[in-house]
Amino acid sequence: MQFKFHMPVKAYFGEGCVKQYGSELEAFGKKAMIVTGGSSAKTSGALDDICEVLKSLNIDHMIFDKVENNPSTANVGEGGAAARRYGAGFVIGIGGGSPLDAAKAIAVLATNDIEADELFDNSFKNKPLTTIAIPTTAGTGSEVTPYSVLTRNEAQTKGSFGTPDTFPAIAFLDPVYTETQPAAVTVNTAIDALSHCIEGYLSNRSTPASDILAQEGIRLFGECKEHLQNGAISREVRGKLLYASMLGGMVIAQTGTTIVHGAGYNYTYFKNIPHGRANGYLMAEYLRFNYSHGAEKTDNVLALLGLADINGFDALIASLIGRAPGLSDAEISKYAAITMSQRSTTYNIRPVQAQDIEDIFRKVQA
Amino acid sequence: MQFKFHMPVKAYFGEGCVKQYGSELEAFGKKAMIVTGGSSAKTSGALDDICEVLKSLNIDHMIFDKVENNPSTANVGEGGAAARRYGAGFVIGIGGGSPLDAAKAIAVLATNDIEADELFDNSFKNKPLTTIAIPTTAGTGSEVTPYSVLTRNEAQTKGSFGTPDTFPAIAFLDPVYTETQPAAVTVNTAIDALSHCIEGYLSNRSTPASDILAQEGIRLFGECKEHLQNGAISREVRGKLLYASMLGGMVIAQTGTTIVHGAGYNYTYFKNIPHGRANGYLMAEYLRFNYSHGAEKTDNVLALLGLADINGFDALIASLIGRAPGLSDAEISKYAAITMSQRSTTYNIRPVQAQDIEDIFRKVQA
Repeated sequence: MQFKFHMPVKAYFGEGCVKQYGSELEAFGKKAMIVTGGSSAKTSGALDDICEVLKSLNIDHMIFDKVENNPSTANVGEGGAAARRYGAGFVIGIGGGSPLDAAKAIAVLATNDIEADELFDNSFKNKPLTTIAIPTTAGTGSEVTPYSVLTRNEAQTKGSFGTPDTFPAIAFLDPVYTETQPAAVTVNTAIDALSHCIEGYLSNRSTPASDILAQEGIRLFGECKEHLQNGAISREVRGKLLYASMLGGMVIAQTGTTIVHGAGYNYTYFKNIPHGRANGYLMAEYLRFNYSHGAEKTDNVLALLGLADINGFDALIASLIGRAPGLSDAEISKYAAITMSQRSTTYNIRPVQAQDIEDIFRKVQA
Repeated sequence: MQFKFHMPVKAYFGEGCVKQYGSELEAFGKKAMIVTGGSSAKTSGALDDICEVLKSLNIDHMIFDKVENNPSTANVGEGGAAARRYGAGFVIGIGGGSPLDAAKAIAVLATNDIEADELFDNSFKNKPLTTIAIPTTAGTGSEVTPYSVLTRNEAQTKGSFGTPDTFPAIAFLDPVYTETQPAAVTVNTAIDALSHCIEGYLSNRSTPASDILAQEGIRLFGECKEHLQNGAISREVRGKLLYASMLGGMVIAQTGTTIVHGAGYNYTYFKNIPHGRANGYLMAEYLRFNYSHGAEKTDNVLALLGLADINGFDALIASLIGRAPGLSDAEISKYAAITMSQRSTTYNIRPVQAQDIEDIFRKVQA
């Protein structure tokens, strides 16, 4: 048994946690930059709550609400420059994965005068600003990981960076903030959380500790699956999904992701398909591909979800998001090559060739 | 669902982890104080390993090897003064719970010129020195908690302190270091780890995340129970016990302990009974006392251990450590009063009166 466990984020979970524990922000400085995508931070009530907390602590703030969906390096570069100009003492990311990941990148760029593309070097001279993370979706888990996933236009895919210094200091997870998300976002992001748990569990970097967290996240998704299918998402179910998402984040903070994420980025980059949905298209075929190398764990995944076999898994996901779009042979070949260039591809429990990825893309088409 | 999760320690687990990852100590300064009890640090090989690492990094060190069993405030006060005189940049605790807890106290006292009794105020002007923890027993879990348990002679019991700043920065958990422990220490400390998992699971401060860690720790103890009974402790079993101990620490870092610890301290303070063994004497009766308030969880504990009922639990523990010593009525009354003064007593799932503690002490006597 050889493993590492590291997840230093202080996570507050529950209704009203921002107002209840927000006074801890006092330790981080007198000027905060709030990083959002503009919409869910406001409609969820999270932005109002955090502004009220900052005011009560006499902490000034500026709002950078220009975070794109799947933010590019140029986008976070703009945010980093704004944070430097403002003299931000810490960064508060509010939203789905995009604003949280952008907040981490901006926190690094605020203290390091480098090009945003240099973020992927994963080594920074100066310690990043402290980051606070407030998710408004239940899927990314970014609030408890060091990772920042950014769109790299030069590589036509996403890339990620993350060091022990880019874990958020505090995460506030309030299920109420996820209530204003459209049903499709709730489903897509829940599948993202599930993919973190399953990919981490079936990773060649899985650890005893990540495995128990992953199994609990998968079990919780199983408890929520009918609710996701029929759209009846109570506050209690919101809580379970947000907790499953946090567990998924804790898992990939140890293991990283695997080929589902690496291949899924192509649907997002080239077809503008939301991240969780893109992962979902690939997952049943991913389980079939890996079965020879992880039969016991795969059977356990299915049991935890209350499913009889991988066909049942396939049907469940299809009932939630349908089938993947058709791709041309040229697209399949290109996407597979890009997937092979991802570091996460090497973490897959079964060694992968480009041909394997091509086969998966081909099999999952509608 | 409302909870907090915080366990910022970077834990390296596995054979050879000190030499493999020791280079990370470079970040913490050029002068280290090693805090030990004198014996297990040397016989285990941990001291040699860490000294070799420090030498390779050109980090000077001094050794404070005067940590008592169940260290007193005076004892850590002496260590704190020595660390200040030496100008230590960080503290490395090597040993069982006593040296690890002493290291945390010394790290606080090195940067705060206060009396050791003021540690229990739990509020320090200056940030403590960084602490590194290397357990040589599988039980305390101190390497992943912020807690330091010290003997308070003025209160005739133990007291504890701990803040988010007193978590170790890094824990190195090498099962090989536990191999030189006598069989009785292996048993006693394993029972301590079990009590952390069970008390955390049955605490009124238990959380969804602490519960999954606790259940895994209990399950692992169950896998090791025959080995503990027959004394055949392979390296694999050592690994499971050390991991269970780490899980127990992660649990109580969230929940704290309850009446088993609070009451058990009396056996240790007044009868010189080792900590884990003292807890063990009380646990079956503690489960009986709490059953009305935690039947489902208690049944799950028993199932995870592969035991039919609490009588089976009682027999298992008795087979490992025998029965508690007899106490006079005056002792029972005094010990119960002291237990009631412990903060952890308020965390018990069933509200507790002094009479309840007296009953438990009375029932567990041989």
